[in-house]
Amino acid sequence: MNKKLFPKDMKQHKILPEFIGVVGLGLIGGSISLELKSLGFQVKGLVHKASTAKRAKERGLAQEISTDPRILKKCGLIIIALPLEKILEPSHELISAFSKDAVVTDVGSVKAPVVKIWREIHSRFIGSHPMAGNNKIGVEAGQIGLFRNRPWVSTPENDFDQEALGIIQQLAISLGATWLTTDAKIHDEAVALISHLPVFISAALINTINSEKDISIKKLAKELASSGFSDTSRVGGGNPELGTAMAVNNTKAILKAFNYYRASLDKLEEIILNNQWLLLKEELEKSQITRSDLMEK
Amino acid sequence: MNKKLFPKDMKQHKILPEFIGVVGLGLIGGSISLELKSLGFQVKGLVHKASTAKRAKERGLAQEISTDPRILKKCGLIIIALPLEKILEPSHELISAFSKDAVVTDVGSVKAPVVKIWREIHSRFIGSHPMAGNNKIGVEAGQIGLFRNRPWVSTPENDFDQEALGIIQQLAISLGATWLTTDAKIHDEAVALISHLPVFISAALINTINSEKDISIKKLAKELASSGFSDTSRVGGGNPELGTAMAVNNTKAILKAFNYYRASLDKLEEIILNNQWLLLKEELEKSQITRSDLMEK
Repeated sequence: MNKKLFPKDMKQHKILPEFIGVVGLGLIGGSISLELKSLGFQVKGLVHKASTAKRAKERGLAQEISTDPRILKKCGLIIIALPLEKILEPSHELISAFSKDAVVTDVGSVKAPVVKIWREIHSRFIGSHPMAGNNKIGVEAGQIGLFRNRPWVSTPENDFDQEALGIIQQLAISLGATWLTTDAKIHDEAVALISHLPVFISAALINTINSEKDISIKKLAKELASSGFSDTSRVGGGNPELGTAMAVNNTKAILKAFNYYRASLDKLEEIILNNQWLLLKEELEKSQITRSDLMEK
Repeated sequence: MNKKLFPKDMKQHKILPEFIGVVGLGLIGGSISLELKSLGFQVKGLVHKASTAKRAKERGLAQEISTDPRILKKCGLIIIALPLEKILEPSHELISAFSKDAVVTDVGSVKAPVVKIWREIHSRFIGSHPMAGNNKIGVEAGQIGLFRNRPWVSTPENDFDQEALGIIQQLAISLGATWLTTDAKIHDEAVALISHLPVFISAALINTINSEKDISIKKLAKELASSGFSDTSRVGGGNPELGTAMAVNNTKAILKAFNYYRASLDKLEEIILNNQWLLLKEELEKSQITRSDLMEK
């Protein structure tokens, strides 16, 4: 955070409300809380279990931490930082603790189903997807700086509340993130291609090794697996709950991405089958250029 | 290199010949030369161009460096460190410079075609594949330590020359590599699964993004591409010549790996299509465990 850009008495204090509620203090919620607290906001953290509340208090994740949703009453901004399936099935107790004037957002990695449910629940809800993370989970994971220079995608609907969106934008910028807005459907299709499809093609690569029945080949493959295999298989060897949640909530876009991928794979296989080596080199040159263009920011 | 294990006057000096020839001084050849020179051997480096010889001399890659194959006459061990296609088509001039008593090996990443050609050329040839590398190429790339703790796979045939194999083994161990021997066909099938297949599935992923015709989705995908996509696409965005050489020389094993992979991918797609979420979670758990087992050394 560039302190010069956000001195305590300036712009974001005029826009962001004094009391901010964070529902869930895992990696994302804990990181949001810690950073807002360090910027001088009064953060109210809601957690599910008393034992989690105890550890969150010990870590000083927020000024007030409770298992009682009523802690959120005075909050002018509430961030739902729960796992996707819980964002999609909020308890009545939670919802009824929100002030009707509060601006509400979430952090779910799929947006269309979230927006569809929450537009009926709260008039000032606008969906968010802060694209940050690491392999840590739980109340010990939150850290300062997680969102710095990472994309924060918000998905306002056609009739969006302009003031609410401004507050969420200021939240993202205050956390050092790069602000983007788009349609929920476009978001979900883009993450299907760039984030969800890689999980499944990478998992399929790992499971391919199990198809090899010759023990000598399988044993040698294990001995020779090095950085190339390690990188290509990393996301496929990640958290199975997360991969499943992606598929459950973004099924259509993921199946569309599978179709594109299959065509792309078929093309390479056919080129190899037909020994069209010049064409193969051209395809690999194309992927080299496309990747370098995609990774260039 | 643990100096204690290989003092200059001990075992490897009795087994390895005093004069060692290295054909090609790129990343692999240059690294072999530098390290052998530092261990006290007399290294003769053969390169193709005068300008390369000049730079190799400036870098001190070997004691003697020339573009004339006759430099190899006295060498008791010769390592062919050329690109795969050049290992497969050695010039008459090169071959006729080898002493018939010299032990000869190569560094090619595919072994069956190399062994098939070289068994007719030289009676003391045994194939090698030192599995080390980085993204550097050319005469500036060679470095000390490249082979340390990396697999060095040798593929002796049924009627192999035991003394010759012992010399190549000592070479690998002197460079700090982990020694393995296997059949050339098993080697090629294992690398098809673990090293070549990842290149093509990763290239197919990159080219998938080009299949998306909606400009908004494509643009957002580029903005959101982060570490997961970067890792999964890394080897597919690598050197197109290298990827093509793999396919040209290991076609059959790569096509077999494609078949395994397709079955593995089809299974995941069908599970998602049928909304079998418990089964999907089980598959992703299986890939998580398999990967952690494969990467554990």
